[in-house]
Amino acid sequence: MRAFADAHPGPVAGGVLVACSGGADSLALVAGCLAEFGPAATHVATVDHGLQAGSDRRAVELADRLRERGVPVVHVLTVQVGTDGGLEAAARSARYEALVAAAGGRPVLLGHTADDQAETVLLGLARGSGPRSVAGMSAWRTPWGRPLLGIRRSDTENACREQGLEVWNDPHNSESRFTRVRLRREVLPLLEDVLGGGVGPALGRTAALMADDLAALDELAAAVPAVDVDGGLLLATLTDRPRAIRTRVLRRWAGAGGAGQLTADLLGRLDRLVTDGRTGQAVRLPGAVDAVRRRGRLVLEPVTRVDHTAVRMES
Amino acid sequence: MRAFADAHPGPVAGGVLVACSGGADSLALVAGCLAEFGPAATHVATVDHGLQAGSDRRAVELADRLRERGVPVVHVLTVQVGTDGGLEAAARSARYEALVAAAGGRPVLLGHTADDQAETVLLGLARGSGPRSVAGMSAWRTPWGRPLLGIRRSDTENACREQGLEVWNDPHNSESRFTRVRLRREVLPLLEDVLGGGVGPALGRTAALMADDLAALDELAAAVPAVDVDGGLLLATLTDRPRAIRTRVLRRWAGAGGAGQLTADLLGRLDRLVTDGRTGQAVRLPGAVDAVRRRGRLVLEPVTRVDHTAVRMES
Repeated sequence: MRAFADAHPGPVAGGVLVACSGGADSLALVAGCLAEFGPAATHVATVDHGLQAGSDRRAVELADRLRERGVPVVHVLTVQVGTDGGLEAAARSARYEALVAAAGGRPVLLGHTADDQAETVLLGLARGSGPRSVAGMSAWRTPWGRPLLGIRRSDTENACREQGLEVWNDPHNSESRFTRVRLRREVLPLLEDVLGGGVGPALGRTAALMADDLAALDELAAAVPAVDVDGGLLLATLTDRPRAIRTRVLRRWAGAGGAGQLTADLLGRLDRLVTDGRTGQAVRLPGAVDAVRRRGRLVLEPVTRVDHTAVRMES
Repeated sequence: MRAFADAHPGPVAGGVLVACSGGADSLALVAGCLAEFGPAATHVATVDHGLQAGSDRRAVELADRLRERGVPVVHVLTVQVGTDGGLEAAARSARYEALVAAAGGRPVLLGHTADDQAETVLLGLARGSGPRSVAGMSAWRTPWGRPLLGIRRSDTENACREQGLEVWNDPHNSESRFTRVRLRREVLPLLEDVLGGGVGPALGRTAALMADDLAALDELAAAVPAVDVDGGLLLATLTDRPRAIRTRVLRRWAGAGGAGQLTADLLGRLDRLVTDGRTGQAVRLPGAVDAVRRRGRLVLEPVTRVDHTAVRMES
């Protein structure tokens, strides 16, 4: 648990809330926080998703064990899991909401390890969801902290064994029906074999470099003075900039103006409207708005019958 | 072969040189170029690496068959393969050098497909070599063109079958000793299975987005007016910029000043010298130069005995 203190993103004067499932990673994280910050600063929350028989009893037992270990405050959070975006996503979103509420402004620390990071990066890459998902999980993004991103899962298991902590293995983690579990048990070991090892740390290094790049581009795009007082986009501020900056400015501008999520394809069309479009041309965006090119500007206009016929859509 | 014309990076008034191994990808590329640009504009080169018995005879036979198909100029290039960086890398570098010489200023077209791109991206990711290798191969970087990056290998095989082109399968391509071949035959099919398909195109999409991001960062870093008339690096031009820009400026500056290739770790130390260093502190770089912080600047100084004792090294 030495690397833990180095990885932590800053002082935790007001204490932290550790999210603990009872698995090796989050138990090791609780132990690390107790050692590092002291019991008074280490609060813990465990979430009962109500998705498995006996989950309520298990949450209470875990809380009792944590109190015996010296944790002064243990929250048992019971959440209702919906179905939006699939069971895994719905459970995560319910869990995260409850944790933020319980944290009361403290950093919420999660037990994701280097192995989780490798799976996330590989998953993002193989799904083609772009640099942002390949950049993986952040070590720190308010209020979420992940102090164990530099530590292997085997290290957290060893730490629990050494300290006599009884680990609960979520049965979902050994069922092949979850993509992530198959990545962990089948794809990553095969990659390790093919490349002669070191794949997990390598994925982590790539993710870290990519996170740097993305942060820079987001910062530079946010600094472009592209929007005028009426919310129009000034084309002259964009045309000389690299495409990766233009598309970021466009995505943010369209979102602020009420457009829905833009696909890469639609963003490409919007970008061509900036670089090669003519006055009067438009691109229809989700959320029932048109991005219309006017003299020197792009403007967002709600779709109405009149507008619809008046505007020549760019194809 | 429809997508071929769309993918090609520009007009080819002076003709092209297609690199052809006799495999399905490059034979399909030759056929596509004959149809697209006409025989007069389609020159072909095949390279005999002298690494397999009978490779000279095979190269001559391929050249004869290509001439029968209507290719007016076929170069058979015989190269000497060294050992620098391993056999694969040495063969590639000898081949590329010979092709550029034979091209006489024409674009050199290579038959890399979407599958090759997927392998490259996965390899770059799993080796942790950073965003640049994850961004994959470029569709166009003078003089190299890759018109088939959007086309699957199965399409080139079909194209050859339809046109009665006899394909030569390099025995190296079915030997598991090459990492890339194992990625193709074992890892990518498993990933396809785990994720329910679409992995190849997804890797290509990620690579394309990443290439945009990298081009933008390189362009923005190159525009930073960081170097003064004496080759010193002006700290004030760097400190407010994002880390991804700073490290690019630093890498380029150190390289121009005679330093060798910097590791990510060394680049991180150099960056800390910019952000947190004090006057007189230094970082030793490969190529026997020290980067030394002076008042408001970093300067590169050759390592000498006197300098070595005068400078306090940053640890």
